[in-house]
Amino acid sequence: MGKNRMEAFSDGVLAIIITIMVLEMKVPHGEGLIALTPLIPVFFSYVMSFVYIGIYWNNHHHLLHATKQVRGGTLWANLHLLFWLSLFPFVTGWMGENHFAAMPTALYGVVLLMASIAYWALARRIIAAEGETSLVARAIGRDRKGLVSTALYAIAIPLAFVQHWISLAIYVLVALTWLIPDRRIERVMAGHEAT
Amino acid sequence: MGKNRMEAFSDGVLAIIITIMVLEMKVPHGEGLIALTPLIPVFFSYVMSFVYIGIYWNNHHHLLHATKQVRGGTLWANLHLLFWLSLFPFVTGWMGENHFAAMPTALYGVVLLMASIAYWALARRIIAAEGETSLVARAIGRDRKGLVSTALYAIAIPLAFVQHWISLAIYVLVALTWLIPDRRIERVMAGHEAT
Amino acid sequence: MGKNRMEAFSDGVLAIIITIMVLEMKVPHGEGLIALTPLIPVFFSYVMSFVYIGIYWNNHHHLLHATKQVRGGTLWANLHLLFWLSLFPFVTGWMGENHFAAMPTALYGVVLLMASIAYWALARRIIAAEGETSLVARAIGRDRKGLVSTALYAIAIPLAFVQHWISLAIYVLVALTWLIPDRRIERVMAGHEAT
Amino acid sequence: MGKNRMEAFSDGVLAIIITIMVLEMKVPHGEGLIALTPLIPVFFSYVMSFVYIGIYWNNHHHLLHATKQVRGGTLWANLHLLFWLSLFPFVTGWMGENHFAAMPTALYGVVLLMASIAYWALARRIIAAEGETSLVARAIGRDRKGLVSTALYAIAIPLAFVQHWISLAIYVLVALTWLIPDRRIERVMAGHEAT
Repeated sequence: MGKNRMEAFSDGVLAIIITIMVLEMKVPHGEGLIALTPLIPVFFSYVMSFVYIGIYWNNHHHLLHATKQVRGGTLWANLHLLFWLSLFPFVTGWMGENHFAAMPTALYGVVLLMASIAYWALARRIIAAEGETSLVARAIGRDRKGLVSTALYAIAIPLAFVQHWISLAIYVLVALTWLIPDRRIERVMAGHEAT
Repeated sequence: MGKNRMEAFSDGVLAIIITIMVLEMKVPHGEGLIALTPLIPVFFSYVMSFVYIGIYWNNHHHLLHATKQVRGGTLWANLHLLFWLSLFPFVTGWMGENHFAAMPTALYGVVLLMASIAYWALARRIIAAEGETSLVARAIGRDRKGLVSTALYAIAIPLAFVQHWISLAIYVLVALTWLIPDRRIERVMAGHEAT
Repeated sequence: MGKNRMEAFSDGVLAIIITIMVLEMKVPHGEGLIALTPLIPVFFSYVMSFVYIGIYWNNHHHLLHATKQVRGGTLWANLHLLFWLSLFPFVTGWMGENHFAAMPTALYGVVLLMASIAYWALARRIIAAEGETSLVARAIGRDRKGLVSTALYAIAIPLAFVQHWISLAIYVLVALTWLIPDRRIERVMAGHEAT
Repeated sequence: MGKNRMEAFSDGVLAIIITIMVLEMKVPHGEGLIALTPLIPVFFSYVMSFVYIGIYWNNHHHLLHATKQVRGGTLWANLHLLFWLSLFPFVTGWMGENHFAAMPTALYGVVLLMASIAYWALARRIIAAEGETSLVARAIGRDRKGLVSTALYAIAIPLAFVQHWISLAIYVLVALTWLIPDRRIERVMAGHEAT
């Protein structure tokens, strides 16, 4: 029941999150290039969060494409994921305005970590409803890539207090590995449709 | 006629409400953990409102799933509900910024009360259009849970001036009872589809 | 072609307009009831604009329901309507903050006037594409109600400089006459579906 | 796979961009007409950006209408386009507030240039997936109009430092040529549907 409306609501929330983040880049008062200088870290922070929300939208899209039915519990698991993603504008703005200082960079990692756990929980709940032999279960598999990402976020959080550029490098690196859409699902789907 | 577009519009409004509430958590200027301290009540207030909007989306989703047709009056009953829900960002921000003081906590309860009445009015109007023997009428029934919630909000409002933590506890308690999606509708629908 | 996507885009824009207007009600700093006093005119202004956007959404919904096809020119006529509606948050905030002073009240009327002309232009363009004997042409007819509303807005604008409460009374009155959805379309559609 | 959801997400993002731009027109504190004077360039800037986002929505709509299938790479090409369009509120506000000074006007041109390149890249990727003989390939053709626009943006950027009104005139001129929806696609589609 109601898979379409859950997708529509998620699309709406993700579209708003990705767009209101740009409001954290306050229009400067000066007209010269110099007026933009303080915005450079905010801009970089915005680009990274845009890519992350894009990744989540992309994977969410693939995950639900392979899903057949949605139950009450799935709706809440989905809202739980959206909750953590809704904190992106806040942590993006805080990290950008403070030039990637230790504490904001660590908090950014906390939101990344919680979102990745929430995504994993959503996927598990869908698989629990559809069975281990379902299309979505085969497509996700053991989700090694997701688990490695989660572990890397967990490592990056304390590292921010040692050397915050390392944490940032980890966030960028993980994002780059996800820019490639989830080929596993596409492959299983293609195999499924070919049969 | 037009049930899909009413759902799409409601999804859009609810998605925006749930997301712009986060804008009330203003990005602080300091970079330390101490800079986040004043935001703790705002964050707690945000979490509670996120859950409430989630509950409304969830129940709205189930209600319309059981609905067969939409008339002019239903569109206005739906807009009336959305109006009260649109006040959530305001009362959430006011209550959070004032550390759950009596007056803001009471006003939060007024919005909860009015929204629950508006939801009840929407459900009644749909049932009036579809008949007391319709699927949606059987699914909603006498809606004891909704009536109890409405009564609890009405009690919590004056209580805020006696001891505002009691009102807050009531809001949290009612939210928890609704976190479980409306199984009655799911049950009636399942029975209906099985036949 | 593409009627669905034009509806979806319009729903999105209208949902955002109706929701971001609430952001003009800035959360006050004080915690007492007195802190809300300056917001009373802003709130009244918000309610009126909420009803107006609701009316436009409702009528837009009915208009497109009777429409069969959408062409390039229709998309632009629709964007033209959305442009004027997008100015609602601005004029709503300006009028509310200045307690319905002459100039803001007149400007509010200008936006109402332009939006009603844009709606009429959209309806005309759809009828031009579908023919004078089409369902939508019969449903809209000569649109006497729309023409009277447009005329009343045009009268209310200069009146704001004589006595701004009269202009406001006109806006409220016209809104009340539209709260009733466009029964003409519903009637023609019902007749059409019965045949 | 998933063309509908990519359209829905794009509609959401474009609807939000086009609407939040209006938030850059801050409600003035005075009640007289004089209070609006500083907003005139911001308003003109808003109108131009509204038209540009409208153009992108229109062309995007036509492009995807002719598209049959969407792959992972297409989703990212689409997000890349949305990224550049998401910068419109920022550059619109900056250009308007600084009365079309050289640097903000040049930066506005940079965003226009990057968005037009991103649109071209999206179209190429769709064509690469569907083949040079596909409907969408025939509809887009060599896209001379798009290439000329891109070239004009590239010329307008350095010109802003010579005489910023020339750059602005170029932006307005290009927008006017695009107000006419992409008749090529409509023509090819019509021919296709007639066969």
